[in-house]
Amino acid sequence: MGKNAIVGQSGGPTSVINASLAGVVEACMSRTDGKVYGMAHGIEGLLQGKVLDLSETLKTSLEIEFLKRTPSSYLGSCRYKLPAPEDDEAVYEKLFELLKKLDIGWFFYIGGNDSMDTIGKLARYGAQVGSEIRFMGVPKTIDNDLMCTDHTPGYGSAAKYIGTVMKEVIRDATVYGTNYVTIVEIMGRNAGWLTAAAALARGDDCEGVDMICLPEVPFHVDRFLAKVEAMQKMRKSVVIAVSEGVKLEDGRYVCELSDDARFVDAFGHKNLTGTARYLCNQVAAHLDTKTRSVELSLLQRCAGHLTSRTDITEAYQVGGAAAKAAFEGVTGKMVALKRLSNEPYQVTTELVDIDKVANYEKKVPLEWVNANFTDMLHPFLQYARPLIQAELTPMYIAGLPRHIITC
Amino acid sequence: MGKNAIVGQSGGPTSVINASLAGVVEACMSRTDGKVYGMAHGIEGLLQGKVLDLSETLKTSLEIEFLKRTPSSYLGSCRYKLPAPEDDEAVYEKLFELLKKLDIGWFFYIGGNDSMDTIGKLARYGAQVGSEIRFMGVPKTIDNDLMCTDHTPGYGSAAKYIGTVMKEVIRDATVYGTNYVTIVEIMGRNAGWLTAAAALARGDDCEGVDMICLPEVPFHVDRFLAKVEAMQKMRKSVVIAVSEGVKLEDGRYVCELSDDARFVDAFGHKNLTGTARYLCNQVAAHLDTKTRSVELSLLQRCAGHLTSRTDITEAYQVGGAAAKAAFEGVTGKMVALKRLSNEPYQVTTELVDIDKVANYEKKVPLEWVNANFTDMLHPFLQYARPLIQAELTPMYIAGLPRHIITC
Repeated sequence: MGKNAIVGQSGGPTSVINASLAGVVEACMSRTDGKVYGMAHGIEGLLQGKVLDLSETLKTSLEIEFLKRTPSSYLGSCRYKLPAPEDDEAVYEKLFELLKKLDIGWFFYIGGNDSMDTIGKLARYGAQVGSEIRFMGVPKTIDNDLMCTDHTPGYGSAAKYIGTVMKEVIRDATVYGTNYVTIVEIMGRNAGWLTAAAALARGDDCEGVDMICLPEVPFHVDRFLAKVEAMQKMRKSVVIAVSEGVKLEDGRYVCELSDDARFVDAFGHKNLTGTARYLCNQVAAHLDTKTRSVELSLLQRCAGHLTSRTDITEAYQVGGAAAKAAFEGVTGKMVALKRLSNEPYQVTTELVDIDKVANYEKKVPLEWVNANFTDMLHPFLQYARPLIQAELTPMYIAGLPRHIITC
Repeated sequence: MGKNAIVGQSGGPTSVINASLAGVVEACMSRTDGKVYGMAHGIEGLLQGKVLDLSETLKTSLEIEFLKRTPSSYLGSCRYKLPAPEDDEAVYEKLFELLKKLDIGWFFYIGGNDSMDTIGKLARYGAQVGSEIRFMGVPKTIDNDLMCTDHTPGYGSAAKYIGTVMKEVIRDATVYGTNYVTIVEIMGRNAGWLTAAAALARGDDCEGVDMICLPEVPFHVDRFLAKVEAMQKMRKSVVIAVSEGVKLEDGRYVCELSDDARFVDAFGHKNLTGTARYLCNQVAAHLDTKTRSVELSLLQRCAGHLTSRTDITEAYQVGGAAAKAAFEGVTGKMVALKRLSNEPYQVTTELVDIDKVANYEKKVPLEWVNANFTDMLHPFLQYARPLIQAELTPMYIAGLPRHIITC
């Protein structure tokens, strides 16, 4: 009997994170006669001994297929950040004890920056204590803000969703032929990749969004209002994509300017949304126009009914590539996507040093933004368009997309 | 050369309103060698002489196919309410003069309550003045609140969208395994049909929403909080579907309780959204839980990327049936959908007296709600499930759904 593998999911869900899980699980199952375990709620759950035997819950190829088409994290997630070994060695001792008890040979963690930090720490500690466990990171985030990879699995589907929804919103907003300013708030606190995807809407059949506000560009409420006023002289319906993370020059988030956003609940959770709502209120107070704010909210990260087949395929591939590398003895690395060419779009996987990924954020290059900071330029479209190509039609049962039954 | 036909779209857009337009246009084109005109922005546009020749813009079957798959109103819309003839006969004189100049024999209006009111008034006035123009109403509204029809085209697709999105949101909300209350705000100011559709999410692969709050049921903030608290003792993630139109017993909308909702812009437009946000703030202030509010907003009525094939087919059929009836000499009627059986689902069209439809609203029967006013009972599911069946896959070009080019 060979050793066992274990895999966890961490951070915010995406609509393709389970395709990466499927990739890891299938590649492990074909390489070991041991078990493949899943951590329930990531490393936080593992520390509480919450482990399931995926060889039991994912038995058939039909279940694997449902898994690939199910949004959000099948195993559950956490936001637990592993302390540095020098600050708290006890947690490492506990973890490695647990992994030893489970007879783990390969450890996979699917996630973003923080998850890669976890993999880096575990790999270093493992090397120190002479562990033979191989630790591999599998990239995942709709935010597309990981370094050393051309893009991250999850981004393509979220970008396709945003492009599609913006086309629909633009159609809806023009219908009355009256003055109308629609502001759509899109996720991405520090990096504007998702907001930039609104630029994909423009085409023969859609005039596109009128303004894109990235968090990489300092925001001025007055200049914003002036731009909206100028635009509305050209066309009655103005549609704007704004990042939830746009900030003033003094570093405050725009959403912090609203009364409502300062609301803090009885337990200190600060509620930071409402950028679009705040800006709509400003527009309505200053210009003769109706306004509407739309927050894409959770819908943009869990829209399993509208995924990019390119994205879901790559998500599956990075999972498989991580397993392959780990079984070949690699540890402390993340699988990255490397673009070979744009036309035709070709991409391969490579392994990158986890320390070059963990705790960094990749921003949208400002060379890809127009001089007026309102639109994305051709290089961005060239970058993003291949990532939204082709569809994976959900399996509809009785009119609704069918998901895997939660474990 | 035969007489010409004219068709307009009115009220809020839906994702299948253009399928009804396609149905009217194709059925007219096969019945007259005259022209088929479209009113730009409904009767308001017609009064300004804004008319287009649809025989020019919808020439090929491919264009008709794109039209069917394009959400929002191709012709544009309006919210114009025709005055009573006794109050302002001049507007009728002007309209009939315009229609005479265009040599109109058949007049179609696709819309909801107000649009049927328009058809009723025009038909009555036409009869008074001896006009031979036939006036027919084609039902359309995501709200499903029209009388005398089993359901309205537009509802099935919106219900399918809501059922799908609720499944995805429920998955997303459980991912951290922590206390979480998610409140999703759904359209429908006075009738709760759309909010009720959240009940469709429940199935083998989804535990469903935990509470449904319809506008038909008076809302008590305290009782709501008590219910949420009790529910969260049973499960950490509580997902609630709430109508934007829930009202207190004194008749005030719940959203009017929030500071932000009282915001009125410089031109007197009152901004009435924020029910979910207000309730989330209440929950966060009283219970030890994180909260998130999600407004489905425009997305639920313009999601052309996720339509019910049943709905889109019926939308097309009522358009065709209206044309057939008008050409057979009928006037002052609306085409209604009549359900013949549930299993198998069978439906036919019939003609109903417009005065029985105009200015009424059909509410959700309270017998279809459970005793605790938190969930829908079997008769509702039996009613709604057939309406969301089957899909019409968008035509994707370069990764995004392709729409017809705006006229």
